[in-house]
Amino acid sequence: MAKFKYYWEDFQPGQVRELGSTTVSREEIIQFATQFDPQPFHLDDEAAKASVFGGLCASGWHTCAMAMRLMVTNFLHETSSLGSPGLDNLKWNKPVFPGDTLRLQHTILETRPMSKRQDVGLVHTVWAMFNQHEEQVLHMEGWAMFRRREKSPEPTPLANK
Amino acid sequence: MAKFKYYWEDFQPGQVRELGSTTVSREEIIQFATQFDPQPFHLDDEAAKASVFGGLCASGWHTCAMAMRLMVTNFLHETSSLGSPGLDNLKWNKPVFPGDTLRLQHTILETRPMSKRQDVGLVHTVWAMFNQHEEQVLHMEGWAMFRRREKSPEPTPLANK
Repeated sequence: MAKFKYYWEDFQPGQVRELGSTTVSREEIIQFATQFDPQPFHLDDEAAKASVFGGLCASGWHTCAMAMRLMVTNFLHETSSLGSPGLDNLKWNKPVFPGDTLRLQHTILETRPMSKRQDVGLVHTVWAMFNQHEEQVLHMEGWAMFRRREKSPEPTPLANK
Repeated sequence: MAKFKYYWEDFQPGQVRELGSTTVSREEIIQFATQFDPQPFHLDDEAAKASVFGGLCASGWHTCAMAMRLMVTNFLHETSSLGSPGLDNLKWNKPVFPGDTLRLQHTILETRPMSKRQDVGLVHTVWAMFNQHEEQVLHMEGWAMFRRREKSPEPTPLANK
């Protein structure tokens, strides 16, 4: 009786999942930026208009955090997820503005066993987030660890010499 | 009369800056995770003890957000920063636990003019965060855009033909 719907064995390269959407408010953008990224273009309309972004926009870390929330709520909570060692090639392609609705798409690139732990496997994925105009606002390539459904059998002991 | 202390021209490869430290509480870890990363090992002591992390620990996105806050407060607010297009090679090397004190170190790898905009330059940097045991908890390599102190002169017009 499995505890989760998805274990490492259930992931295959090429699988694409739509992981829902979220709408971000002006208040949420300012609240996150006040706490973690108080740069003028995340807090102040006039400063933001004069910036390269052209208007008040979300911290890139806020965009990542919103993607993570969709990932957990609409996927990871049904999996044997054990966290992530890191990621690569993170791009904030476009600014995220107040009222934007962001959807997350998740594609599996590759899976491999973990050499150090027989009960854990790694999964390499692309996260892509799009706004309501179908413009991509976020891209990243992450590694995640998942518990395996069944441990591989222990290696057969070498014959006594 | 420059508005900022540091413009793109002031950054040189090899410069290392210590950007202060911050201490994270259990309440802050749980608050961030509740909003953005509600996985059991970020919220619940028993689940976390049974996880690969061995105890309740911060969301990796929370660690990044704390690094960003130090970056803004202790560096970017004195600069002509224009935001970042993205980053590479992000590693969450070790878990961050309640009560940990994290310090941020920033090293400049490379600078280059921006081909599309004469008034903007790019800076390639390493962010490294360490806990109070001098264990590295975060590594990333980011690109940032900074306004230049002075525009390059406009290209000389071609002679009339």
